[in-house]
Amino acid sequence: MVARDNGAIAKAVRAQRDAMDALFEQLRADGRDDPGVSRDPYGPGEQRGHATVTRFAAAMGLEIGHDAAANLYMTLPGRDRSAPVLVIGSHLDSVPHGGNYDGAAGVLAGLAVVGALQSLDLAPRCDIVVMGIRAEESVWFQVSYVGSRSSLGTLPDGALEARRVDTGRTLAEHIAECGGDPAALRDRKRHFDPARIAAYLELHIEQAPSLVEAGRPVAICTGIPGNFRYTDAWIEGDHEHVGLPRRFRRDAAMAGAAFAMALDGLWADYDARGIPMACTLGRFHTDPAAHGLTIVPGAFHFSLDVRAYDPGVLAELEAKVGAIVKRIEQERGVQFHLGPTARAAVGPVDPGVKAALETAAAAQGIRFLHIGSPASHDAAAFAAAGIPMGMIFVRNANGSHNPREAMTIDDFLDGTVVMAQWVAEEWT
Amino acid sequence: MVARDNGAIAKAVRAQRDAMDALFEQLRADGRDDPGVSRDPYGPGEQRGHATVTRFAAAMGLEIGHDAAANLYMTLPGRDRSAPVLVIGSHLDSVPHGGNYDGAAGVLAGLAVVGALQSLDLAPRCDIVVMGIRAEESVWFQVSYVGSRSSLGTLPDGALEARRVDTGRTLAEHIAECGGDPAALRDRKRHFDPARIAAYLELHIEQAPSLVEAGRPVAICTGIPGNFRYTDAWIEGDHEHVGLPRRFRRDAAMAGAAFAMALDGLWADYDARGIPMACTLGRFHTDPAAHGLTIVPGAFHFSLDVRAYDPGVLAELEAKVGAIVKRIEQERGVQFHLGPTARAAVGPVDPGVKAALETAAAAQGIRFLHIGSPASHDAAAFAAAGIPMGMIFVRNANGSHNPREAMTIDDFLDGTVVMAQWVAEEWT
Repeated sequence: MVARDNGAIAKAVRAQRDAMDALFEQLRADGRDDPGVSRDPYGPGEQRGHATVTRFAAAMGLEIGHDAAANLYMTLPGRDRSAPVLVIGSHLDSVPHGGNYDGAAGVLAGLAVVGALQSLDLAPRCDIVVMGIRAEESVWFQVSYVGSRSSLGTLPDGALEARRVDTGRTLAEHIAECGGDPAALRDRKRHFDPARIAAYLELHIEQAPSLVEAGRPVAICTGIPGNFRYTDAWIEGDHEHVGLPRRFRRDAAMAGAAFAMALDGLWADYDARGIPMACTLGRFHTDPAAHGLTIVPGAFHFSLDVRAYDPGVLAELEAKVGAIVKRIEQERGVQFHLGPTARAAVGPVDPGVKAALETAAAAQGIRFLHIGSPASHDAAAFAAAGIPMGMIFVRNANGSHNPREAMTIDDFLDGTVVMAQWVAEEWT
Repeated sequence: MVARDNGAIAKAVRAQRDAMDALFEQLRADGRDDPGVSRDPYGPGEQRGHATVTRFAAAMGLEIGHDAAANLYMTLPGRDRSAPVLVIGSHLDSVPHGGNYDGAAGVLAGLAVVGALQSLDLAPRCDIVVMGIRAEESVWFQVSYVGSRSSLGTLPDGALEARRVDTGRTLAEHIAECGGDPAALRDRKRHFDPARIAAYLELHIEQAPSLVEAGRPVAICTGIPGNFRYTDAWIEGDHEHVGLPRRFRRDAAMAGAAFAMALDGLWADYDARGIPMACTLGRFHTDPAAHGLTIVPGAFHFSLDVRAYDPGVLAELEAKVGAIVKRIEQERGVQFHLGPTARAAVGPVDPGVKAALETAAAAQGIRFLHIGSPASHDAAAFAAAGIPMGMIFVRNANGSHNPREAMTIDDFLDGTVVMAQWVAEEWT
């Protein structure tokens, strides 16, 4: 390891301010879908984003490659091309009518780190691969980490047959339309063996206002939650007349409300005990084809996402949710149909990477928090594959998955400087 | 009043069993919309039902007439044509995918009463008018008692501009398409002056299983509830990322669930104190255009129907619902937008009519219950106009507003016999 000029590294990153600003704005224009942006995975929105980023990376002189899932690899060659590589990346898709930064900021940060190395003439000791990952947002195919798990050969069986909720077409069809190769994917064909990835680094906007609250620009991640999800659950009661007395009702919506309140109480209890978790009923609705002002709802549909940082806590929560379901079924004479349960493992942050990022932030005088990621990230898929992983969060005022995401370019550059400092110190 | 041969009256009603069975089946075929029947008001379903009933009544020799709202009047002339008339009726529309009996049974019962008088050669002392009422089901236009209130000149201002939830076209347009005259309706033009209606009688299936529980075929109604309704309410929160900690959330769906549970608790309390009421959140849903597995719901929509038999109880409930809304707004940082409040007055049953129906049932040896109507009925509009009103409920196994309505023809004939007995005793 050679001691670098910290001031020169920061300056080389910040010199790219206008280029990054312009690239963010081009991505916003590419995905524009008022309100907000929709970079639909394996669809026109994401495709335009990939094309824009590819043009930018090609102009930087990076090697451009793709895998069978049409993930984008933008490589700065290292001195030893056979050495295990450093991957810096994030995803380029968004939720429908989402913001411009969730995902994209991490890809652009990778390009800015590489751009800083180029301008400082620092040749890395191994290939540094900036990855534009596909289809991270599970709202579309109801499968999480599609692109990253495809790249690692860990995409679960059946995922290629999942249908995009809006188009009704399968993931395999969508991948093929975007130049991917579903058959090769079924054979677990990869761009490089995961054993050849030395570490994975991801910058992402914070999806909660903890950094805003604390007045810090960046955070170093302490872990990524695992989750269990009911993607397509419903409650069966009886559709009845609005005048039916209470004792005769099997009201599916009231059962749904009782379920929600029980989960809310469970969460409040864990909060009070300082055990981080979250639960979200994202879809929560009577059946639009059958509901009406004067009909007691006989069917109620919901999705549930429960997340925590500890596998033991997650297992305990799943058991408690099961007990709540049983109790409500008995109390209200309804039946829950939970459907398939999707799971994602807890994603541990590598202690060595975390410590090195802390050192880098200190060296640059950038004040940071430690935060357990509230959200899931592609980084968790890399951690689950045994790859040392680290993450940087950037301050963001209005949460993510909405058009009001508000990351400043200054905070983005601070996060990128921390990454560049570490890469310059340890990977060149 | 002349004492009639009770056995002959019962026999004359029951002799129409096959004709009534066939007429019910024709109506079912007319409205068929699997699952169940949809006699959409001022649309093809209701139109076919009206045509079928009109053909049947014309074949009986009844006079056929219509008013500006296209309500159907089928008149057996009385000895004194200028005397105040007896109206027997109900509605011919249904909810979407409803059952075959809610409404239609009351129209057919009226025809069977008149048919019995004809076969017994009993000329009524005044016109007996069987009414096929339009658009009772408020699920379509979100306006209650459209046909009956139009016939009485009490349709509220603005109702003609209400839009049918599925077609998006106004009530006025729909009425005009079915041969009605919205301009005449705006001038409160009526088929006859409500002061000329001596009494209104309606048979209806019971919409709860109280008669099934008690093992009785019929009930005599003690009153019809009034209601207040939020037809188009919603809760405003923030759409946020699924990972957002609990303290930062303004989850509109959780607020909806809290609202539902508070109402459920309120109802349980009134039940325990023996005060009849009901409340129903018929539509209760996240926004299908914006919701998703990984998005905290920022908007939640609902309809609310609250009903009770006492105007004081109704006013008290409306105040309590307002207090619940305020509390949840404060606790959860959301905002309720209740939108317009629709109201229907409590519909008292005439004590004289009720006593006469009890006498008639006793004379025929038909065992009955007393029941406060759980549901709203056109009869309430007649009562509100000061017309003496009575109702008969018929046993029905599976509630109404669903395809599994199960009224037997025997129970229907029992209810009709009670009505025919009273009409023969008091109106011939």
